[in-house]
Amino acid sequence: MGKGGMSVDEEENMAAWLVGVNTIKVQAFKLPPLGPNDVRVRMKAVGICGSDVHFLKTLKLAGYFVKEPMVLGHECAGVIEEIGTQVKNLVPGDRVALEPGISCNHCYLCKTGRYNLCPEMRFFATPPVHGSLANQVVHPAELCFKLPDNLSLEEGAMCEPLSVGVHACRRANVSIDTNVLVLGSGPIGLVTLLAARAFGVPRIVVVDVDDYRLSVSKNFGANEIVKVSTNIQDIDEEVNLIHKAMGGRVDVTIDCAGLNKTMSTALKATAAGGRVCLVGMCHNEMTLPLTPAAAREVEVVGVFRYINTWPLCLELLSSGKIDVKPLITHRFGFNQNEVEEAFETSARGGNAIKVMFNL
Amino acid sequence: MGKGGMSVDEEENMAAWLVGVNTIKVQAFKLPPLGPNDVRVRMKAVGICGSDVHFLKTLKLAGYFVKEPMVLGHECAGVIEEIGTQVKNLVPGDRVALEPGISCNHCYLCKTGRYNLCPEMRFFATPPVHGSLANQVVHPAELCFKLPDNLSLEEGAMCEPLSVGVHACRRANVSIDTNVLVLGSGPIGLVTLLAARAFGVPRIVVVDVDDYRLSVSKNFGANEIVKVSTNIQDIDEEVNLIHKAMGGRVDVTIDCAGLNKTMSTALKATAAGGRVCLVGMCHNEMTLPLTPAAAREVEVVGVFRYINTWPLCLELLSSGKIDVKPLITHRFGFNQNEVEEAFETSARGGNAIKVMFNL
Amino acid sequence: MGKGGMSVDEEENMAAWLVGVNTIKVQAFKLPPLGPNDVRVRMKAVGICGSDVHFLKTLKLAGYFVKEPMVLGHECAGVIEEIGTQVKNLVPGDRVALEPGISCNHCYLCKTGRYNLCPEMRFFATPPVHGSLANQVVHPAELCFKLPDNLSLEEGAMCEPLSVGVHACRRANVSIDTNVLVLGSGPIGLVTLLAARAFGVPRIVVVDVDDYRLSVSKNFGANEIVKVSTNIQDIDEEVNLIHKAMGGRVDVTIDCAGLNKTMSTALKATAAGGRVCLVGMCHNEMTLPLTPAAAREVEVVGVFRYINTWPLCLELLSSGKIDVKPLITHRFGFNQNEVEEAFETSARGGNAIKVMFNL
Amino acid sequence: MGKGGMSVDEEENMAAWLVGVNTIKVQAFKLPPLGPNDVRVRMKAVGICGSDVHFLKTLKLAGYFVKEPMVLGHECAGVIEEIGTQVKNLVPGDRVALEPGISCNHCYLCKTGRYNLCPEMRFFATPPVHGSLANQVVHPAELCFKLPDNLSLEEGAMCEPLSVGVHACRRANVSIDTNVLVLGSGPIGLVTLLAARAFGVPRIVVVDVDDYRLSVSKNFGANEIVKVSTNIQDIDEEVNLIHKAMGGRVDVTIDCAGLNKTMSTALKATAAGGRVCLVGMCHNEMTLPLTPAAAREVEVVGVFRYINTWPLCLELLSSGKIDVKPLITHRFGFNQNEVEEAFETSARGGNAIKVMFNL
Repeated sequence: MGKGGMSVDEEENMAAWLVGVNTIKVQAFKLPPLGPNDVRVRMKAVGICGSDVHFLKTLKLAGYFVKEPMVLGHECAGVIEEIGTQVKNLVPGDRVALEPGISCNHCYLCKTGRYNLCPEMRFFATPPVHGSLANQVVHPAELCFKLPDNLSLEEGAMCEPLSVGVHACRRANVSIDTNVLVLGSGPIGLVTLLAARAFGVPRIVVVDVDDYRLSVSKNFGANEIVKVSTNIQDIDEEVNLIHKAMGGRVDVTIDCAGLNKTMSTALKATAAGGRVCLVGMCHNEMTLPLTPAAAREVEVVGVFRYINTWPLCLELLSSGKIDVKPLITHRFGFNQNEVEEAFETSARGGNAIKVMFNL
Repeated sequence: MGKGGMSVDEEENMAAWLVGVNTIKVQAFKLPPLGPNDVRVRMKAVGICGSDVHFLKTLKLAGYFVKEPMVLGHECAGVIEEIGTQVKNLVPGDRVALEPGISCNHCYLCKTGRYNLCPEMRFFATPPVHGSLANQVVHPAELCFKLPDNLSLEEGAMCEPLSVGVHACRRANVSIDTNVLVLGSGPIGLVTLLAARAFGVPRIVVVDVDDYRLSVSKNFGANEIVKVSTNIQDIDEEVNLIHKAMGGRVDVTIDCAGLNKTMSTALKATAAGGRVCLVGMCHNEMTLPLTPAAAREVEVVGVFRYINTWPLCLELLSSGKIDVKPLITHRFGFNQNEVEEAFETSARGGNAIKVMFNL
Repeated sequence: MGKGGMSVDEEENMAAWLVGVNTIKVQAFKLPPLGPNDVRVRMKAVGICGSDVHFLKTLKLAGYFVKEPMVLGHECAGVIEEIGTQVKNLVPGDRVALEPGISCNHCYLCKTGRYNLCPEMRFFATPPVHGSLANQVVHPAELCFKLPDNLSLEEGAMCEPLSVGVHACRRANVSIDTNVLVLGSGPIGLVTLLAARAFGVPRIVVVDVDDYRLSVSKNFGANEIVKVSTNIQDIDEEVNLIHKAMGGRVDVTIDCAGLNKTMSTALKATAAGGRVCLVGMCHNEMTLPLTPAAAREVEVVGVFRYINTWPLCLELLSSGKIDVKPLITHRFGFNQNEVEEAFETSARGGNAIKVMFNL
Repeated sequence: MGKGGMSVDEEENMAAWLVGVNTIKVQAFKLPPLGPNDVRVRMKAVGICGSDVHFLKTLKLAGYFVKEPMVLGHECAGVIEEIGTQVKNLVPGDRVALEPGISCNHCYLCKTGRYNLCPEMRFFATPPVHGSLANQVVHPAELCFKLPDNLSLEEGAMCEPLSVGVHACRRANVSIDTNVLVLGSGPIGLVTLLAARAFGVPRIVVVDVDDYRLSVSKNFGANEIVKVSTNIQDIDEEVNLIHKAMGGRVDVTIDCAGLNKTMSTALKATAAGGRVCLVGMCHNEMTLPLTPAAAREVEVVGVFRYINTWPLCLELLSSGKIDVKPLITHRFGFNQNEVEEAFETSARGGNAIKVMFNL
């Protein structure tokens, strides 16, 4: 049931459509039919991700191209309005955080527990699939996770970026036995820092080019911060500073920037037998001192989105082990003007970490 | 006891000294004193490794520089002549294969089972440590592995290159569950191919630029071979040929060349969730399409030498699961002329795979 | 299409129903409707498993109870007759081997790649789900694996028992680096032996109480065989014999019997740091010397069915690395008399290894 | 140099000798010569372990028998008095925590990073090796870990019991992704609880038969506690209570008691695909419902002492992530009367957790 007894067909469902470079239009979005295992969710909190901004500015990201108008948004939480005939674990009124990707569940990668790599993945706001920055969406019930009472819908939406940090820490084998170097102190660097602390990491050093961002990392619990330049010539000197700041082995480096320089730094800074995890993906091709790192048996692993992170994120937030609320620096309502302003705010960076819509 | 009752001090111990670029001199080599846990071994078979040739031509390799004259050689087997006071498992007359590296056994890396990365490693013919291309050497007993009766001393010496293939397969998680692509069909590519087959790999495709080398791989059991160019522009087309030859997922790629082009090929050819293992180390810095591979969560691991491989290699050779004898294409005696000729033969490549000294 | 243009509804589909203790009736079995992702398969080869015999004799197995008449059989292969509207990878006429279990694909265990543990698993001939010893069955297309041309339908049916051996070897971390002790030389012991050889195991010792069974293991490639008693007092002496037969570390023991005595033997025989894998499940409760084994950090892992084994089994059979044909010792047609005789033959044991129906 | 210029030979070195059942004598203990890689340490803090008490009462433990008088004690810290000629990382005056076991560093188990299983291990107070409850001991420098300035010598001694908890958590794969059930709330249960919290475990439930011990666990951070009986009939009901207290999957159970009942509880309580870790070792032989657990692929791993835990323990204590000080409930001086009283206090249990000597 829609609110006020109005059926969903009568009500206008508005969404934020990417219609051209730097052009978003809030306009009607017709929902697909509700399948037996689906739920219809009224969106309440949707965050802006760097990928949304990248699509907005260039209509592409990695190998994906926006060829038709597409609804943006994939960091989201809302309230169940209607459930399909086979849905058992949710009822209308439940507050849920949404995992954005629908995998096939049948291919080799799904069957071996790596559904994030499913070649048939359908993911919010990755073309040609529409996103969730809309009043309502239809989504599989199994990807809607009920929020504990002590969590807000905004915290629910933050499960998505936090999942990136959690998956990076898992892939990097982060644990109580690994000191961690985080390269980059933007939103992904920060969630990685928060996750690494929750994983029991003894010492975390965060590196960035920006003083403000570094100060945020310090506030979020980095043991030490190191300011670096964008000049690739400075790497050896900076690696020395990093080693001094760590005061021990750099067992794991998580590169949340994904630049030629940051990956070079990662390969040089990481100890023999350690692991480098590439999360940020700015530069497609990189010129890297890979061989000397390989000769120290440093491993390089990439991460792509996440697997099975929502229950853990909800637990970490609900138990207070991680607090993502300070990451939300800006809030906007959901109309044409505010949507434009919100994306501009996110794109500008500066002191904006996470920009959130309240719908 | 030396042979004929002659003491070791009286007998002249000759060794192949690298004394300058392209200059080897067979001259006297004074043995260190025999420690309580050491043995004195009369060398019988010593192979030439690519690293020996590289040092001969340039006096350097990776981060190592030959600053003083150094005895070459590290692929070796011989007969025990004398044992230290604490040695229990060997007696004079035992035929042994020698593992060339002496680790500290006390550092973090040794204690966690990764002694190949020990920062205090002392390794035959890696400066400033002398090698084993000599009539006799002194070595820790624990690194001398008794040959089964059905193995020759040459096969004992071949444990060293075979160990590289075995360690690469272990690091790459090669198993019955992984199709394997081997890039490069030189000596290391061939031992990797042999090892991969013994690990139960379903399908192995070998790639090289040279028809003769590829034909050797086919004879050694490659399921398919693919000839490629040295032109980096051809990668996409060659990856298609590789995929066709494999006829299934490329779960693991082992790059035995270590060139910019081969690593690029490895990163593009390997399936989502797969693993690339870098063994060859020609190019120090490489320009690589790393990010797209990382986004498929392809992992990159390097290998450095080996750990705990001799017992396994002896088992594989003794049981007949691997036959390394066809790899030995040339044999030389141990005197100034033959030593020079042997190194020239090895350096020339061509149809030379493994060049072996019989002392 | 049914054969001769007859529709499936008109044609009588016969199946082997377990209707009471020691009572099987071949009678009509109405097929469920064909879902969009299903296929209808004409069964051609169905093997008898120990669990079928156990249900026949007792109407129960482990925690499962036969409360209603149930069709038996789950080791099977056949020919596709009809495909659902969404099926893309199969066409009528394809010869396929069937994986018998349908998991939910949505629970925590499915999502982490352990679908064999799915609490909602629906598995052929595990009550209350019907089996596949029938002229035709309907099954999800994703669980029907196309046979390579060089494999027979009987070999296709043998993928099921072979899968048990393969999964046991995976769970036990069997590899080129592990000597393996197999306890029990019945059908499961034999497929485990065959799988272990394909995994590259250096040395395999097989233990049984029966000379004939041991001789079969020797023919199937066991390096050594050891005859033991059923007397639990003999364990220490028998462990000595086992160690002598192995001539090295017992890295892994796979208990294919699952008796109190065999598990005790496994715990005592396995080397420090090794692994015991429990496959056979005869005794529910066992009195075991667990603590001394735990103090050597011997791990104990159980196996339940298998995950993602069909493609590997087909590869192993097709490439000739494993030959299961000699396991099939008896063949029967599909009618009331032969079905009864076949189950009696299987239950009797003796020289019967695998009893197969040709439908 | 000893203190006041007095040589070590002149000074009387007293130690606590186990000379018979329930009989300890504080008497002279002649130190072995100081090897080049050894240090001489003046003991300052030595804790009493359950194994010390067990040896005192029975002269045996597991497979070890006290046949000659033996010095007790192995949880210890002290101050370096003298260093061997090759020792580089320590100087007299350094405060150190001692890892008690000297492994061979050469066998297969040492070389693969599992030195705790070394068959030639020489371990403080495990017959026939003397312990460290003495004024001075000689020990390898590599096993003496310098204390950070903010840690006391008592905290240094506590690294030993804490290491048991840390190693158990490592072996059990405890992490942010695993709820943990701890069976037993004695000293080992408590250090396991503390370690599990530091490993980032979301929820920890502790079980014991004793209200006081359970209340201590609650104070040390258990999320929930469950009181159980010693009656094996109550298991099913108690497992229900445990599941209710956990409110989610029991991914890992760590049995710190090692009784027939606790292991049965562990096997029944642990979720499909989970892990049981056996730390306590009271009952040698156990009658267990192993098969149903194995059919859920629950793994059972034992732990024996620890590997590479001292640096981590010092880090955890120094950073304040773990506070072991409240575990030390009783302190005694080092003379005949107080030694006897201390062991009686430890043996009595009651509110005694850790009994510590200040020497």
